[in-house]
Amino acid sequence: MKNYRIEPPFWWAGMKDNRLQLMVHGNNISNLTVESPSKKLKVESWQSTNNPNYLFINLSLQNTPHGTYQLHFLENKKVVNTIDYQIKSRESNSANRRGFNSADVIYLITPDRFANGDSSNDEVDSLKEKLDRQNPDGRHGGDIQGVIDNLDYIHKMGFTQLWLNPVLENDQPQYSYHGYSTTDYYRIDERYGSNRLYRELSREAKRKEIGLIKDIILNHIGSEHWWMKDLPAEDWINHNAKFSPTSHKRESLHDPHGVAEDRNGFADGWFVPTMPDLNQRNPMLANYLIQNSIWWIEYADLSGIRLDTYSYSDKKFLTDYTQRIVAEYPEFTMVGEEWSINPAIVAYWQKGKRRHDDYQSDLTSLMDFPLQDALVKGLTEKDSWSDGFQKLYATIAGDFIYANPEKLVIFPDNHDMGRIFTQLKHDVALTKMALVFFATTRGIPQFFYGTEILMDNKESDSHGVIRSDFAGGWKSDKRNAFSGSGLSNSQSEMQLFMKKLLNWRKNSPVIHTGKLTHYAPQNGVYVYFRHNQSSKVMVVLNKNKGTVVINPEKFPSMLKDEKGRVGRDIFTERKYSMNKAIEVEGMSALVLDIVKN
Amino acid sequence: MKNYRIEPPFWWAGMKDNRLQLMVHGNNISNLTVESPSKKLKVESWQSTNNPNYLFINLSLQNTPHGTYQLHFLENKKVVNTIDYQIKSRESNSANRRGFNSADVIYLITPDRFANGDSSNDEVDSLKEKLDRQNPDGRHGGDIQGVIDNLDYIHKMGFTQLWLNPVLENDQPQYSYHGYSTTDYYRIDERYGSNRLYRELSREAKRKEIGLIKDIILNHIGSEHWWMKDLPAEDWINHNAKFSPTSHKRESLHDPHGVAEDRNGFADGWFVPTMPDLNQRNPMLANYLIQNSIWWIEYADLSGIRLDTYSYSDKKFLTDYTQRIVAEYPEFTMVGEEWSINPAIVAYWQKGKRRHDDYQSDLTSLMDFPLQDALVKGLTEKDSWSDGFQKLYATIAGDFIYANPEKLVIFPDNHDMGRIFTQLKHDVALTKMALVFFATTRGIPQFFYGTEILMDNKESDSHGVIRSDFAGGWKSDKRNAFSGSGLSNSQSEMQLFMKKLLNWRKNSPVIHTGKLTHYAPQNGVYVYFRHNQSSKVMVVLNKNKGTVVINPEKFPSMLKDEKGRVGRDIFTERKYSMNKAIEVEGMSALVLDIVKN
Repeated sequence: MKNYRIEPPFWWAGMKDNRLQLMVHGNNISNLTVESPSKKLKVESWQSTNNPNYLFINLSLQNTPHGTYQLHFLENKKVVNTIDYQIKSRESNSANRRGFNSADVIYLITPDRFANGDSSNDEVDSLKEKLDRQNPDGRHGGDIQGVIDNLDYIHKMGFTQLWLNPVLENDQPQYSYHGYSTTDYYRIDERYGSNRLYRELSREAKRKEIGLIKDIILNHIGSEHWWMKDLPAEDWINHNAKFSPTSHKRESLHDPHGVAEDRNGFADGWFVPTMPDLNQRNPMLANYLIQNSIWWIEYADLSGIRLDTYSYSDKKFLTDYTQRIVAEYPEFTMVGEEWSINPAIVAYWQKGKRRHDDYQSDLTSLMDFPLQDALVKGLTEKDSWSDGFQKLYATIAGDFIYANPEKLVIFPDNHDMGRIFTQLKHDVALTKMALVFFATTRGIPQFFYGTEILMDNKESDSHGVIRSDFAGGWKSDKRNAFSGSGLSNSQSEMQLFMKKLLNWRKNSPVIHTGKLTHYAPQNGVYVYFRHNQSSKVMVVLNKNKGTVVINPEKFPSMLKDEKGRVGRDIFTERKYSMNKAIEVEGMSALVLDIVKN
Repeated sequence: MKNYRIEPPFWWAGMKDNRLQLMVHGNNISNLTVESPSKKLKVESWQSTNNPNYLFINLSLQNTPHGTYQLHFLENKKVVNTIDYQIKSRESNSANRRGFNSADVIYLITPDRFANGDSSNDEVDSLKEKLDRQNPDGRHGGDIQGVIDNLDYIHKMGFTQLWLNPVLENDQPQYSYHGYSTTDYYRIDERYGSNRLYRELSREAKRKEIGLIKDIILNHIGSEHWWMKDLPAEDWINHNAKFSPTSHKRESLHDPHGVAEDRNGFADGWFVPTMPDLNQRNPMLANYLIQNSIWWIEYADLSGIRLDTYSYSDKKFLTDYTQRIVAEYPEFTMVGEEWSINPAIVAYWQKGKRRHDDYQSDLTSLMDFPLQDALVKGLTEKDSWSDGFQKLYATIAGDFIYANPEKLVIFPDNHDMGRIFTQLKHDVALTKMALVFFATTRGIPQFFYGTEILMDNKESDSHGVIRSDFAGGWKSDKRNAFSGSGLSNSQSEMQLFMKKLLNWRKNSPVIHTGKLTHYAPQNGVYVYFRHNQSSKVMVVLNKNKGTVVINPEKFPSMLKDEKGRVGRDIFTERKYSMNKAIEVEGMSALVLDIVKN
């Protein structure tokens, strides 16, 4: 058998879509024909491109049970090569898997920076970039084993979903740890582990009721990807495979007054020369990307996908992509990154949105950048007619623009922006208020690793610093956040605070699915409730330096029927009578479970 | 005939809606019955309220020709009073009047502060507040005659619509000049003139092809209104006719998480104690307000209505109000004031909007506060990824949120905010750029009186200073903007600049109805075009201190077919070849009519 490269490397029987397109790469194979000796596997057709080294084979799996099948490659009717292709059986209930939702809390980990569970893979001969823990932008050795080793910590903290920054191979000569320059779509980077280990992570996490969310980049590829040396077709990469920067003007996509120059300048431009921009208008590339995502969902039993730089991909392709994923997995969750603080732009992409145009999308969720921005301004700006808490209130009140605000992923920070502790001016009290807010308002909270130990980026806003190593992830570390040893008092306090908060949330269905009702903030105090037929939670954020007194009479819609009950502080267990004034300490968040006395 | 007060004082035959409800006020009349001796005028029914001094009479004018009709008031079947009621004939084509639109430019005048054409009415015995020109918040004597006297100036400047701040009677003891505390819905304040003079203004303006827009306040009344001393029913005024301030939280109206407390706190609250808040949920009050607007459209031959504090009125009422006005006058224009810089909130109210809910509105236009804010930030902020021109571009690009962005009223300032010259840091060049922008982008431009002579509010942002007297409107004035005498060089230059700009706009249909196409700004330069099949205009705003060179090759969608043509500078007549680099001076706006060489 000659050295053919085939992607996807295998597939599954019984998918809803019974078509499969194989990309086969081999020297001068475009003039070959293809046959399936088994009647159970049908070769529908094959296509070649301008590059003689590729064949795209269209299979029908309509009546194909799992098993290994041969494919014959022929020249002048003689078989010149044969490959085995495996069709596996699916896990039971795979199609009906539940995605993540507002009952969950997501832990975002930068795998190179969390924990080094296997130092034997810190450097790999076949991969270019070596270990350099002194370099903030270098590889530090964190890996999948490090995550597996600490699942217990993650579980006990109260997280129920794991989002790792991309772990596919990034064999770039430098600055590869972030994972956003894919050099193999079907292989986990060996410095992080292996495909099998990634699957093991998924299984081990699932045993602790933690789902796994894969970070997928549809927009661009790594410049060292093997294709890039032998492109299937020149139009797989925008701008004729030559660097031309994106304008980042996402507004252009929806702009009724816009020009093609700006739309293309946004969607076809590259981020950086090491990230060639994929042209998803090419139907074979589009299909390749869609199959790749399905492959990982099926292979690694994913609970969700986070779609990087979402709107930078071709708009029509994004319709096809989301529709095909949802067709296979109706209850799956995909969250798109659309980094805009304009809710109208974020809302545009969500499934179910009543749009000005006829655009279709099956994207479940978006990252709620507008709320992130509003929370920080809410807590740091002095309150006024238009500033401070008013911005937070107005943003939540503006939810009418979304089809499903409760499905948004909400977050105080992520790997691309300053640490929330730094954004909140290294104020522990404000940071606690931020955590309470994200843990109790509508949406699916996501927290970045290290938030619980007050990681900051005081010295620099460079990404390498923001994504510093988690204390205790390396054997030589003096402080250990997993065991708690060496942490400062405020770090330990914050860790315990978050642990209590998230575990309380985990066991509070009213926060998962209850209605949110809020009141316009007054005098630096923002009050809201989560409630359903059986439960009610009251949250008070007090931004004032001093204690404020909350009069339950001021909230008749929510509290007039609760006079005989008490509010139990979820942190201290202290009880407050709901028919008396409630004192709330300065610079604090009070969370009351309203229960029978 | 006893002293009955009847509103409306007369009506017209041949309205589409043939119902008319008269409000009759007289001592203890609620127990009377009503009859029409003429078969041509039908009394359908009458209603009383808790106040014995009111009767509401429902007439049907289905078969009523114009003429004067008697109404008999009976007690124990005996006629105790008779009144004459006039049904007039309508002006021809009244129903089909054209409202204002994007072919127009609106001149906003604060009547007390523009020109004193009749000093005999500076003080009126029967009205409380007297002349005090030294007091910035006092009455200065400007009037309708002053506007009539200067229609020629307004016309020559290039304006085609006049919006006067309210001129209905405001018989408040103090701070009454602004006109927003109505004390009689059917009478022009005598210090401004009379109903007849207001109609004369409309007629004289129309001769110069200038329309008249009435400023109407549905939300509140003046505390000294005659009703307020004898309310038709206590529920005509919110909060039992006792002062309770509005929260100004307009977000609450659309908030899916909001409470009745906040919605009512917004819509039912009062602005100030002298402006009692009307409860338009009362059907008789609602009808009273609607009839009053129709009465003024018909009486004064209006071309439009500007609706003050729009969203503060009852939401359901606003549906009825706009639908009934549009039913009578399908081509009429109403513009609502919704002072929010969130386009989602502004867009909500416009006719044709695809909303998240089923709310209906026939409101043609909104004041474009988001664009005003974006223009000022666009010109004064240093350009960055998110600031400066990016905000202006993003706001225009965000037009997908509006049903009809071209119907928005756009403005650099108005009577309630700092003068644009002050907002732009007293920079003449920036102010010219702002004027060019509003005169050439989509929408219906509105300019505040005095902008053309660089009126500012350097010393104070108080309303009385913002609304200072227009130079030359008073005989004693040393400077005269009408004649030009005594103006500074920069004032004269700005006046001429605006005159050229607006007169060019008036004769440029491509600006009225041509498509707007803009490019994402780059390096402090924002370029856009207005174009239709026969014409094309290019606008370049250069915020840089120095000259920039524009390469037409960078705008292929707009300029690739224009290489053989020239761009004629609308101010200097200088011609630029469209196949060569175009130099644009620092801090300037270049407007090119692209024409045959």
